[in-house]
Amino acid sequence: MKAEIICVGTELLLGNIINTNAKFLSRRLADIGIDVYYQTVVGDNQKRILETTLNALKRADILLFSGGLGPTEDDCTKEVVCKAINRELYLDKQILENINCFFEQRQFPKSNKKQAYVPVNSKVLKNDIGTAPGFYIEEGNKTIILLPGPPTELTLMFDKYVIPKLNFISNFTIKSRVIKTIGIGESSLEEKIIDLIDSQSNPTIATYANNGQVDIRITAKADNADKADVLLNEIEHELDLRIKDYIYSYENESIEEKVFKMLYERKLKIGFCESCTAGLTTSMLASVPGASEVLERSYITYSNLSKIDEVSVRESTLNKYGAVSKETATEMAKGLLKKCSIDIGVSITGIAGPTGGTKNKPVGLVYICLATKDKSFVLEKKFHGNREENRVRSAKAAFNLVRKYLLNLI
Amino acid sequence: MKAEIICVGTELLLGNIINTNAKFLSRRLADIGIDVYYQTVVGDNQKRILETTLNALKRADILLFSGGLGPTEDDCTKEVVCKAINRELYLDKQILENINCFFEQRQFPKSNKKQAYVPVNSKVLKNDIGTAPGFYIEEGNKTIILLPGPPTELTLMFDKYVIPKLNFISNFTIKSRVIKTIGIGESSLEEKIIDLIDSQSNPTIATYANNGQVDIRITAKADNADKADVLLNEIEHELDLRIKDYIYSYENESIEEKVFKMLYERKLKIGFCESCTAGLTTSMLASVPGASEVLERSYITYSNLSKIDEVSVRESTLNKYGAVSKETATEMAKGLLKKCSIDIGVSITGIAGPTGGTKNKPVGLVYICLATKDKSFVLEKKFHGNREENRVRSAKAAFNLVRKYLLNLI
Repeated sequence: MKAEIICVGTELLLGNIINTNAKFLSRRLADIGIDVYYQTVVGDNQKRILETTLNALKRADILLFSGGLGPTEDDCTKEVVCKAINRELYLDKQILENINCFFEQRQFPKSNKKQAYVPVNSKVLKNDIGTAPGFYIEEGNKTIILLPGPPTELTLMFDKYVIPKLNFISNFTIKSRVIKTIGIGESSLEEKIIDLIDSQSNPTIATYANNGQVDIRITAKADNADKADVLLNEIEHELDLRIKDYIYSYENESIEEKVFKMLYERKLKIGFCESCTAGLTTSMLASVPGASEVLERSYITYSNLSKIDEVSVRESTLNKYGAVSKETATEMAKGLLKKCSIDIGVSITGIAGPTGGTKNKPVGLVYICLATKDKSFVLEKKFHGNREENRVRSAKAAFNLVRKYLLNLI
Repeated sequence: MKAEIICVGTELLLGNIINTNAKFLSRRLADIGIDVYYQTVVGDNQKRILETTLNALKRADILLFSGGLGPTEDDCTKEVVCKAINRELYLDKQILENINCFFEQRQFPKSNKKQAYVPVNSKVLKNDIGTAPGFYIEEGNKTIILLPGPPTELTLMFDKYVIPKLNFISNFTIKSRVIKTIGIGESSLEEKIIDLIDSQSNPTIATYANNGQVDIRITAKADNADKADVLLNEIEHELDLRIKDYIYSYENESIEEKVFKMLYERKLKIGFCESCTAGLTTSMLASVPGASEVLERSYITYSNLSKIDEVSVRESTLNKYGAVSKETATEMAKGLLKKCSIDIGVSITGIAGPTGGTKNKPVGLVYICLATKDKSFVLEKKFHGNREENRVRSAKAAFNLVRKYLLNLI
């Protein structure tokens, strides 16, 4: 089974954006045992898209297109592919209705109607997060799949609606799981499991650094799903023996989702007092639907004065130890806990950079304190990233501290 | 002058690595006015590299290859390209000597000798940081350039040795600018300038939706940089006449950077009282280095009680109008302003979704209020994204409100 990937978009040929779609699709196809022989990038140009399509039809069984399904003038992938295989398009009222809903009372831009045209005898692939649907077309013994260009839409649509269809075409079942770790760097983690990575070909094991965390993807190929699960369970057990302390989830979930669930199950309320992260931590927790069940309020105490006003940090503490210190972090968390009706108070204070560091207190130094009615714990971290990385890593470290507290690991 | 980029490497087709070379080369070629019509990725396979080369020779003036110049068995780009144009290879003693030097005392791998073979009548491009040299070959009116695959080697070689040759071939300079807009969707924006987009070929105009905003890239081609600037200034002026209200920057900067600069120049302090955005807005502002000059503190009042406690929203207002209302937003902003020493107080309250919406107050409904000593303004917005999109768009709308206030546009 041979596939060919065709990415449509002048912005790719101008080098304005990097082609993450080609990598994503290639990776996924490799995972399910489908060979990719060519990736082609072509601009929003009817003649050249047609030439590329006709070429690909000669040499591949599966053609995967990304991009050129949008509402604007130059989006023409669907129209050109239909021309290549001599297939008509019709206006689908349901899709038009969906787009209407998407825009609701707002002025419905005329150009969006274009997206409601569907190739005859094709299967529409729903776009759960955008307006352009995808299409799955069979033409003789060829399969043609049209996907929208925006990576978030393409990846969601591919995993949800295309993979099950391709699994059916291919003779294998491929199953992947993502194991989420936190609190260990990629090289250190890899050192602990390098023999497994090197010796395993089924399941395969790969690590991916992911903004201050490391994800481990294990992928098994088998005749059926049950056999794949057996292989995955075995390797998961082995990983568990080696790196249990760093694994926070076997579901593909973020650390804030995990902490939300843990707090929700225990019916606990949390609040934050954030300095260097300035709302990022609270915002991450609030990105989880239902967050209001566990999140009561937070303070962003950016200035020294606000730390004194809002959470009763003593002026003498700030003068003696500075805003970025164990002592200030502790008073912030305890003051927060005293002030509002929450079960867990977490404070974060640090130097995000790029300026503001000194020899004793370098950029990346962060103190995180967790306080409850009975106890408090302070964590010192030294990050080595840029401003944004240091802030994200601080927020994640705060969530990891909450997780460990709830599991009695601190 | 048309170019085609051909990247050779099975690791690209497996999705193991991302194709940064194609982006880099495309970007550079665009900068010097050479059009790229196709990028092709092909594996380390002689038959398919040959087919791709012959195809490209038919349609392009310049062929740029990356990869497949290494010492291993499957590296065959040079050999196949020479076969395609019927050109002999000879062993170059100088290159062999260089490779010898590179390995010095270390054992010289036999396979590296392969890299010392040079196409007859070609110009060798020196590899300053690796062993595989590149080649610049002229064949009739075609130019063929072979570059090594490792991105650090390719970029250095291209900028140092290839650009001067191509600048000489091409007679153009290309300049691009990015114009940032906010408060209008891509289709609606395009409707306002579609005639310009359609009629212009130099400069070209392209719109890119960018997480609730739209960027416009204008690109001019001219004999020299000054002439390109004249063309860009003209089109910028025309865009200004049409969509001035939505343009917030002619620099490639984010809305929060723009607002930070505006506040900083005016020596104004700001604070936020965030409900649905829950710290996201403050966090975005704090991502700009130096934010402490304008940001004093913020409250994340997620629960009703916290709105009453922290910013003196009246219980009767919450009961009568609800937490998501013009009235509550106004009391939040005014209460915030009263409580701390800031010049501008901004409140945000809304329904991010996916649940919590009603017929009268659907998911995506957001109220934003800006209050100063003398005035207050409330903005009602209806977003149609998912939870994250609604939150990001709310935060951006809040920044846009601040921008408009500072420019006396509200």
